[in-house]
Amino acid sequence: MSMLKNDLFLKALRGETVERPPVWMMRQAGRYLPDFMKLKEKYDFFTRCRTPELATEITVMPIDQIGPDAAILFSDILVIPQAMGIEVEMKNGVGPWLPNPVRSIEAVGQVTVPDIDESLGYVLDAIKMTKQALNDEVPLIGFAGSPWTILCYAVEGQGSKSFDKAKGFCFSEPQAAHQLLQKITDTTIAYLKAKVKAGVNAVQIFDSWGGMLSPVDYQEFSWKYIQQIIDALKDLSPVIVFGKGCWFALQEMSQSGAAALGVDWTCSARNARYLTGGNIPLQGNFDPSRLLSPIPEIQKQVKIMIDSFGKDRYIANLGHGILPNIPVDHAKAFVEAVKNYH
Amino acid sequence: MSMLKNDLFLKALRGETVERPPVWMMRQAGRYLPDFMKLKEKYDFFTRCRTPELATEITVMPIDQIGPDAAILFSDILVIPQAMGIEVEMKNGVGPWLPNPVRSIEAVGQVTVPDIDESLGYVLDAIKMTKQALNDEVPLIGFAGSPWTILCYAVEGQGSKSFDKAKGFCFSEPQAAHQLLQKITDTTIAYLKAKVKAGVNAVQIFDSWGGMLSPVDYQEFSWKYIQQIIDALKDLSPVIVFGKGCWFALQEMSQSGAAALGVDWTCSARNARYLTGGNIPLQGNFDPSRLLSPIPEIQKQVKIMIDSFGKDRYIANLGHGILPNIPVDHAKAFVEAVKNYH
Repeated sequence: MSMLKNDLFLKALRGETVERPPVWMMRQAGRYLPDFMKLKEKYDFFTRCRTPELATEITVMPIDQIGPDAAILFSDILVIPQAMGIEVEMKNGVGPWLPNPVRSIEAVGQVTVPDIDESLGYVLDAIKMTKQALNDEVPLIGFAGSPWTILCYAVEGQGSKSFDKAKGFCFSEPQAAHQLLQKITDTTIAYLKAKVKAGVNAVQIFDSWGGMLSPVDYQEFSWKYIQQIIDALKDLSPVIVFGKGCWFALQEMSQSGAAALGVDWTCSARNARYLTGGNIPLQGNFDPSRLLSPIPEIQKQVKIMIDSFGKDRYIANLGHGILPNIPVDHAKAFVEAVKNYH
Repeated sequence: MSMLKNDLFLKALRGETVERPPVWMMRQAGRYLPDFMKLKEKYDFFTRCRTPELATEITVMPIDQIGPDAAILFSDILVIPQAMGIEVEMKNGVGPWLPNPVRSIEAVGQVTVPDIDESLGYVLDAIKMTKQALNDEVPLIGFAGSPWTILCYAVEGQGSKSFDKAKGFCFSEPQAAHQLLQKITDTTIAYLKAKVKAGVNAVQIFDSWGGMLSPVDYQEFSWKYIQQIIDALKDLSPVIVFGKGCWFALQEMSQSGAAALGVDWTCSARNARYLTGGNIPLQGNFDPSRLLSPIPEIQKQVKIMIDSFGKDRYIANLGHGILPNIPVDHAKAFVEAVKNYH
């Protein structure tokens, strides 16, 4: 195993004392980067995901141009349902589009738990190629959606403000929902294990839509499957769990074996530290829209954010993915403000 | 002033001891009712709002068919920006559509604070007609959007998952945003005062998009304007504030002079009582999607909900508006489960 030149991110994940917190940004390899937009014009979404050379180029791009302390593999959470035999398209102006949503026990029966090497080997190839390209400069993060969040898309068939069809399916056909969630969980565990074996230094689970559920329903339809993933992975790799809008579950999450927890901007550092007991590393929580503020304001607010979380057991990040309309110099100002923290 | 035959809702708002909690449902006069859908086919959205006979018929419909303990005037929060000179359409399949969104200090300058009788007299007429039709059976609630929520639509120009344009406007042009928010606040205060004078028994402020903001930004861009409204109204009428996703502001809200606070389903009764200090009446918080559960499950969960909040200083409601795809007998089962509570 080679030594990383910048291991600040892994140190923070282990709770070690650091000179300044590490920083990266969710969706840092994304649409706010002009060079990414050029690739987007030439190659469609899944071509970018499936071509290791392109995934590598996109993953490394923000490391060179913005300078965060960790890379996150360019991919998408929807490669999982796709590998499970559920058709997934990316429609211009619509986003994810699943023409045959899973809305019955029969449809759940047809969903497969695939062989990872066969169906998702292109992700593993991209990891190996990216590790070489990164040349041990910074660690590489792999990720997956939470089973609940994947179910949301599989049942709803597209993005949604409130995923009412997905929730309605769970509440009217809970048995079918649990079967689907277990299949997604089994696939995700095998997928993340393969990613770790291929070389990622940490994994993050995105529960983007966990905050749509009540605390009781969150336990039943989301958390217990995430816990299975943590249990299966935690001895192989640090696991970060980010549940958007899931402040109500932070206490339980802090006792799960996760290495760190993501926090969105609606939960203050103080509340997040209080709810998680003060010891587990936290990651977040700059409002992505706040990157539209003038740069001096961004610098001021980054300082306040780090002071509030404390410099240790903390990974500076946004509270959700970076937005397409953020000026590159604002993104860079965010990362540099963390690097200049003292 | 006439006596209401059923004043359970007003008693709960005053914190008095009741035999069982009152119940109503946000959007109870809405698209899950087949008779509403028939009117919707015949009359477009703003015709329904602007014709007192139609607004009255729609407002009274759920009282007759579902049996809640309070009526809420059929109208829309977007009648306010419309009255302020901002064009508002309802587009099929899109929802609210504002063809000329307010995105500059110049555009804010052109927004007017209108005379209420002149621009919104039709709402006041609808209140008077509805009060007659209700014949003092149950109280009538009037409502308005929070200034922040109205700004969201005025700037974004349509509904959105995250109102990034609206937030970006506030963060890049805070002075213009505050001018717009103050104009909306002044209009809303005059509007709600006129509604109380016309006969509503309580008013509710819907801060539907407050939960998009960080706690600090919530204070600056939403709460301080809601506080102005409460200060201006509280001696004339009970004021209920419902901020969706605003659990982080509940403590401050509880000290604001509001008569009651709405709670969504992501904040448990226990957390809500803790955060608000235990004395202020709370309203909520059944997950609207949970009305898709089988009726025995709805009955069970309503019992748990009331037990958790406690029967006093509590108004049973959903945690957000009822969904169009809820079967009428499920909505009725929800209301009856509250009525049968013991």
